[in-house]
Amino acid sequence: MATGRLVEVYLDLLSQPCRAVHILLTCTKIPHKVRAVALRKGEHRTPTFTKLNPMQKVPVMVDDGFVLTESDAILKYLTTKYDVPEHWYPRQPERRARVDEYTAWHHTNTRPHAAKVFILEVLLPAQSGSPVDEARLNRALSDLDDTLDKLESMFLRRQPFLCGDDITVADLLAACELTQPLGGGRDVLKERPQLQRWRSRVQSAVGEAFDEAHSVLYALRDRRRARL
Amino acid sequence: MATGRLVEVYLDLLSQPCRAVHILLTCTKIPHKVRAVALRKGEHRTPTFTKLNPMQKVPVMVDDGFVLTESDAILKYLTTKYDVPEHWYPRQPERRARVDEYTAWHHTNTRPHAAKVFILEVLLPAQSGSPVDEARLNRALSDLDDTLDKLESMFLRRQPFLCGDDITVADLLAACELTQPLGGGRDVLKERPQLQRWRSRVQSAVGEAFDEAHSVLYALRDRRRARL
Repeated sequence: MATGRLVEVYLDLLSQPCRAVHILLTCTKIPHKVRAVALRKGEHRTPTFTKLNPMQKVPVMVDDGFVLTESDAILKYLTTKYDVPEHWYPRQPERRARVDEYTAWHHTNTRPHAAKVFILEVLLPAQSGSPVDEARLNRALSDLDDTLDKLESMFLRRQPFLCGDDITVADLLAACELTQPLGGGRDVLKERPQLQRWRSRVQSAVGEAFDEAHSVLYALRDRRRARL
Repeated sequence: MATGRLVEVYLDLLSQPCRAVHILLTCTKIPHKVRAVALRKGEHRTPTFTKLNPMQKVPVMVDDGFVLTESDAILKYLTTKYDVPEHWYPRQPERRARVDEYTAWHHTNTRPHAAKVFILEVLLPAQSGSPVDEARLNRALSDLDDTLDKLESMFLRRQPFLCGDDITVADLLAACELTQPLGGGRDVLKERPQLQRWRSRVQSAVGEAFDEAHSVLYALRDRRRARL
């Protein structure tokens, strides 16, 4: 356990996995310093940032010279290295395995499917000036529906959080991903009371850290709404 | 640490992640029982298997009633629960974080890109009777090339294995993924001496367990070769 120094994190809060890292750091009060990397300004492609992370992606964590990428790995490292409540990433092998199971699944389900809706509704039209490709958007929404069905019927079937009775890093990754389409004014959980209740539980568990991490996304939503 | 009982694993050795689990179990001599699930016969869609894993995917592990899916989670659970050499999944936070970093990256890079080459060259033509879609195959090969570049220039830049000086579960996942196109007669590491040397190190480290897990894939390659 290190003292007297700060974990540095390079984040853009418009990036879903960056928000998950931000929420964990805020909630657990790990002393940290946020370095903003504005993706829309290409700050992840500068020579300095590329030297830090040749993959040119955020988030990046630097802890006493140890440089780590991938939000999944960063979240698990922080809960292991720092003295945080054990529920975030339980040590008991079966309970920990449930978190690893969800996070592995997340990378090819929740993450790409929710991200694609935002990309098609917000990013691509903003970059190209063209209207939303409705056919592609409908396919993306259908893939996301399938993922939401599985979140409800499998992960949340008999428990309040994705991996058990208490909140874990898995819930942070999932919740931050599923809020992303809000940037385009779309609440993908609108018709999903079971997932809405889960999201409320996540928000209650992390308190103000949730809205703090999402302020940039909410501002994007509000700017778009004002223009319509 | 459990004794006197067997870990059960439901596997199809034509599936890359199943081979990784098989190699770890064989190498570490964890007492286990393999239950074959033939994907080509649809055995993952039977009511019995669907009850075990509603996702209808392999691998699945059952350890004393604890049912776990996702190869990434299964590999990490086994190394934690059983008394295996620590190098497979180091306990030291920084070294462990390197494994978690690679495995997170793996799910959206090595895995889909190598798998797609096999799907386009072997699976789809076998299912549809149509010739290989060369345009899609070329795009898939180009995506895979980008992933292979990163494996060489980032993960293997200054070390013999993907996450350090010794073999970890990350090397198993990556090696089993990169052998998959061999089923269609394609060695994707042919022009990649650095990655070939890494693959040789992985094979040396796991011994006969490598060829044992790959026997079904080699047989597929040989049958296709005989038909040409």
